[in-house]
Amino acid sequence: MSALGSKWKPIIVMVIKDRTLRFGEIAARISVISRKVLTDQLREMEEDHLVTRQEFKELPPRVEYRLTEKGLALLPILSLLEEWEREFDFTEKKLEEII
Amino acid sequence: MSALGSKWKPIIVMVIKDRTLRFGEIAARISVISRKVLTDQLREMEEDHLVTRQEFKELPPRVEYRLTEKGLALLPILSLLEEWEREFDFTEKKLEEII
Repeated sequence: MSALGSKWKPIIVMVIKDRTLRFGEIAARISVISRKVLTDQLREMEEDHLVTRQEFKELPPRVEYRLTEKGLALLPILSLLEEWEREFDFTEKKLEEII
Repeated sequence: MSALGSKWKPIIVMVIKDRTLRFGEIAARISVISRKVLTDQLREMEEDHLVTRQEFKELPPRVEYRLTEKGLALLPILSLLEEWEREFDFTEKKLEEII
């Protein structure tokens, strides 16, 4: 799980999903992340073969990201994790209300 | 996934599994973790309702940990993550050998 050793990477994987997104589109969808942190996370994810990065030599330059097969295989597992968190956070909040 | 925001917590969950383990037993099974870090991680996991901690007033004192229902529900998801990592690390290593 070391390839996921940050709170941002699972979120970035779930945001990209099965489509191609430009850097700015990813940044806009995770508005709380700074561009510097997002850049660093995406670079690490590229090194870990979770995403591919394609640069188009246009003006202004365009950079697009996609999940690799490895990244795509992670999507259903992250959905289970999300479901797990939703289920138990909900239960905990209900319990707190009762107590 | 914030309850898992560390590389150690998934490992600790997988080590405890469906049994009751004493602090020293967990520490022995994850020999690379310091007792200080393990103590801190277990305390956070208790706050996040992933584990329960039971202290027995004996001499020497005995402290036992179990996964909660929330922690137990995480086990099958972590197994999938392990499988995912094994599968793709293997593929990457094979590719590197070929290239």
